Amino acid sequence: MNRQELIAQIKQKKSFLCVGLDTDLKKIPPFLLEEEDPIFAFNKAIIDATAPYAVAFKPNLAFYEAAGIKGMVAFEKTIRYLNTHYPDVFVIADAKRGDIGNTSAMYARTFFEEYDIDSLTVAPYMGEDSVSPFLGYEGKWVILLALTSNKGSLDFQLTEDKDGEPLYARVLRQSQKWADADKMMYVVGATRGRMLEDVRKIVPDHFLLVPGVGAQGGSLHEVCLYGMNKDCGLLVNSSRGIIYASQGKDFAEQSALKARELQESMASEVASIL
Amino acid sequence: MNRQELIAQIKQKKSFLCVGLDTDLKKIPPFLLEEEDPIFAFNKAIIDATAPYAVAFKPNLAFYEAAGIKGMVAFEKTIRYLNTHYPDVFVIADAKRGDIGNTSAMYARTFFEEYDIDSLTVAPYMGEDSVSPFLGYEGKWVILLALTSNKGSLDFQLTEDKDGEPLYARVLRQSQKWADADKMMYVVGATRGRMLEDVRKIVPDHFLLVPGVGAQGGSLHEVCLYGMNKDCGLLVNSSRGIIYASQGKDFAEQSALKARELQESMASEVASIL
Repeated sequence: MNRQELIAQIKQKKSFLCVGLDTDLKKIPPFLLEEEDPIFAFNKAIIDATAPYAVAFKPNLAFYEAAGIKGMVAFEKTIRYLNTHYPDVFVIADAKRGDIGNTSAMYARTFFEEYDIDSLTVAPYMGEDSVSPFLGYEGKWVILLALTSNKGSLDFQLTEDKDGEPLYARVLRQSQKWADADKMMYVVGATRGRMLEDVRKIVPDHFLLVPGVGAQGGSLHEVCLYGMNKDCGLLVNSSRGIIYASQGKDFAEQSALKARELQESMASEVASIL
Repeated sequence: MNRQELIAQIKQKKSFLCVGLDTDLKKIPPFLLEEEDPIFAFNKAIIDATAPYAVAFKPNLAFYEAAGIKGMVAFEKTIRYLNTHYPDVFVIADAKRGDIGNTSAMYARTFFEEYDIDSLTVAPYMGEDSVSPFLGYEGKWVILLALTSNKGSLDFQLTEDKDGEPLYARVLRQSQKWADADKMMYVVGATRGRMLEDVRKIVPDHFLLVPGVGAQGGSLHEVCLYGMNKDCGLLVNSSRGIIYASQGKDFAEQSALKARELQESMASEVASIL
């Protein structure tokens, strides 16, 4: 999916919501465990219920790998379901990959060719040649970790170099030489609300994938105030807050309510800029 | 596997060789493609041929994931084969994972509980709480990326902070607060030979996993000169140089010859310290 298509979808749905499919067998409604493929059954119901309010879905690979081969089958089915039934939504494989060139090239082939996923989260630690193999695919995106939402982001991401530039800022600045705002996005955690202002000074045009709203405590209002640009430029992710809204038979409806609630908060923000 | 068992094995085999199982369907001998599971058939033959000379095996997850579900089945079979037939070798899942706490916890469960793998490579960018979920398993290890062997390692890993400390050194220093040398190792590329001297000033006791000897151009002699400690403290990995030694029916024998060649170079080094 290209940038214009993504912006059009945001405009149409009045939403920049990304639903994180962190599907855990220990957390889904117990009655689903009787299904042949409980993970996919859960995802399908959540996708169908929340798609009117969301522009993106983000399965987190860890949760599928944790369920072994069955989990990976469920992951593939989920991707195929999204690509077939919701071709307009933006699909993010949250995998945080990044390795030496030939290995990153293998990952790129897997996620972009085999699965035909729109984008992949990538870790920057190994530098340009670990990221560039992901950049050769038309309409496919790298979402590079910059400033994450967890406590450990303080350990290295905020370390300032000799010129006072923190590592995350260096990542933002350097990586712009590798690809432009049509192929690259950045992960910037909502728990660092005010810092989005600094981020926007370095990457005014790029889309940001913002996790941490909801369960992790980030504020949607702050994210919009400091992070929005003229094309919206935000994909705000919520996982647990939406998908585990209920353990009952009504779990899908309840997740739709949570998604709609977020979408409604987003609608006025979108109206103001698009 | 604990540290003493690893050292005992190094002493016994006079080797600190790790064989990297970067198994690619496009590179294995073509006649193997007729096998029901070509990836596992290849790995089994390579493992049996090289195990006398190697103390560790390192399947790189990217190569298995790239082959889809079949690849992951082959990965599981490879791990089970190693655990059953070669319980004394150290098994490394080269996955370069690292995510927010609850996600890292899922990965830890997968690799350490489900697969019962000895160790996992982890990326440090997200800091302590992305690494600590891997540290709660008896006899299991985190191998943290510090200074990698690729060109892109220059982009961020060597960036110096205000006090002149490069990022990789900060990663080495900080992460020692999270776990000691019985639970943590570091990836330090052989292509940075001389820099192993600086690494040893910060982590004198830890084991280092050293990729980049062979295909990537690193020198075994330099690695030993600057990187060895009183317990050996090294696992030197070679992947392509060993496993793709031949495309013929003799591929396993040829890989054994390459592994033995490296092991023989290692034997005198081991004799001098253990």
